[in-house]
Amino acid sequence: MTAGESFTQQFLRKAAEKNSLVCVGLDLVVDKLPAVVGRGATALVDFSRAVIEATSDMALAYKLNFAFFEAHGDEGWRALKKIVEMIPEHCLAIGDAKRGDIGNTSRMYARAIFEDMGFDAMTATPFLGHDSIEPFIADGSKGVFFLCLTSNPGSKDFQYFSDGRRTLYEYVAEKVVSWNVADNCGLVVGATHPDELIRIRKMAPGLPFLIPGIGAQGGDLERSVAHGTTVRGELALYNSSRGIIYKSMAADFAQAARQETERLRDAINAARREKVKS
Amino acid sequence: MTAGESFTQQFLRKAAEKNSLVCVGLDLVVDKLPAVVGRGATALVDFSRAVIEATSDMALAYKLNFAFFEAHGDEGWRALKKIVEMIPEHCLAIGDAKRGDIGNTSRMYARAIFEDMGFDAMTATPFLGHDSIEPFIADGSKGVFFLCLTSNPGSKDFQYFSDGRRTLYEYVAEKVVSWNVADNCGLVVGATHPDELIRIRKMAPGLPFLIPGIGAQGGDLERSVAHGTTVRGELALYNSSRGIIYKSMAADFAQAARQETERLRDAINAARREKVKS
Repeated sequence: MTAGESFTQQFLRKAAEKNSLVCVGLDLVVDKLPAVVGRGATALVDFSRAVIEATSDMALAYKLNFAFFEAHGDEGWRALKKIVEMIPEHCLAIGDAKRGDIGNTSRMYARAIFEDMGFDAMTATPFLGHDSIEPFIADGSKGVFFLCLTSNPGSKDFQYFSDGRRTLYEYVAEKVVSWNVADNCGLVVGATHPDELIRIRKMAPGLPFLIPGIGAQGGDLERSVAHGTTVRGELALYNSSRGIIYKSMAADFAQAARQETERLRDAINAARREKVKS
Repeated sequence: MTAGESFTQQFLRKAAEKNSLVCVGLDLVVDKLPAVVGRGATALVDFSRAVIEATSDMALAYKLNFAFFEAHGDEGWRALKKIVEMIPEHCLAIGDAKRGDIGNTSRMYARAIFEDMGFDAMTATPFLGHDSIEPFIADGSKGVFFLCLTSNPGSKDFQYFSDGRRTLYEYVAEKVVSWNVADNCGLVVGATHPDELIRIRKMAPGLPFLIPGIGAQGGDLERSVAHGTTVRGELALYNSSRGIIYKSMAADFAQAARQETERLRDAINAARREKVKS
């Protein structure tokens, strides 16, 4: 990080330097890993090292979903920390923890994720309100992506709840924009909702978006790029997990992950060019 | 657990056996622990052992907030697991994790909390909707307390969002009632909202409530008991963390925690008798 840079500035700079908006999701299920890396928590580390080394020149970010590590107890937690340390400085390391609790408790989570483990950004749930997220956004150099409209079918249950003027997800976007005083707040919006992305981007023109749901979840990549990036075709991060890391189950898994990362980067960049041209 | 008992049945039986609705919150901040237990992650275990031994005949449940353990990395995670194992069978062990993610990810969290660590219940955030919570409620013997109306000031930001007929927290209560097919769903409602408790209890007459916010957060105990328990004065769990565990900073901390647990149990039971009488 350049001294004094906000998270959003880092995002813009690194994305421009690498010409990439790809986020590789390291959602590691041990049983699904290629046999060559073995089993157990060390396999998580070995597999991740190989994938990071093979893809880090083309990936802007890595997203580590905590659930997949917590499933391995303290060993998983140790693996998580080791893997964050492997992510090069020129990439963004995102802790996909979806945390949120009352103020004194969120402070503990912020300490674990930003200070102890050194992530550049995290995901958080906004539904406990301002005091619950204050410890997350206190350091402007660290980013927070707030759940706004999630990629899963259940997003319909609460996130479309409406007061007649706006839905809950729009209200979240509105609030997060007001929280963005340190230029470090972002939104999570699933690629499975490409139409809603138009409205959310309009409400939050300068916020980074983390967009999961392409790949295994079937989100629409081209429309997500057209609707999710800014007017200049920037500030959105497209995550693929299973689509990249489980592309090959053989010894060439890292090479396959690299090819898939390249394919995704190029597809996103083509859609960005289309957008900016039109 | 008696074979075939649902979580809610276990709650009712254990509460009756112990005549207690007290939940002791083990929100452990190492710097705040009495000097006699030392520092570091082993202090968390030693402190908890002493508190559990001193209070377990009077406490119905223990609630472990994951944030306070994650702040210590893998050592904290190991401490968490050790402490759950110390909680006697006649009590309920609640993992206050506030988790919630898309389906395949929530499955990992459920595995960590229920299978790997053996908690009897957990807290969860409902806002990602049904597929996100399905793995949590799949086993009827394990309980899930869903965030409904939280105890903190920020609860006002989103939880009172209204569609004109009902607020978001009421809508959550409605949904959770519909999810309760295995008799294992509950709600988290802060004692700082005693009036709202009336309406929530009316909407969910048979669900266990986890009620934090008495003690340090200033919630109203008597009204929370009157409004939060069922018509029979049952099925609510009153959590105090800082109010019990930091009562004394000297070598008598466990004894002080015991006295405070007893005082709280008796105050709750007096309010229950008042309620059932009236």
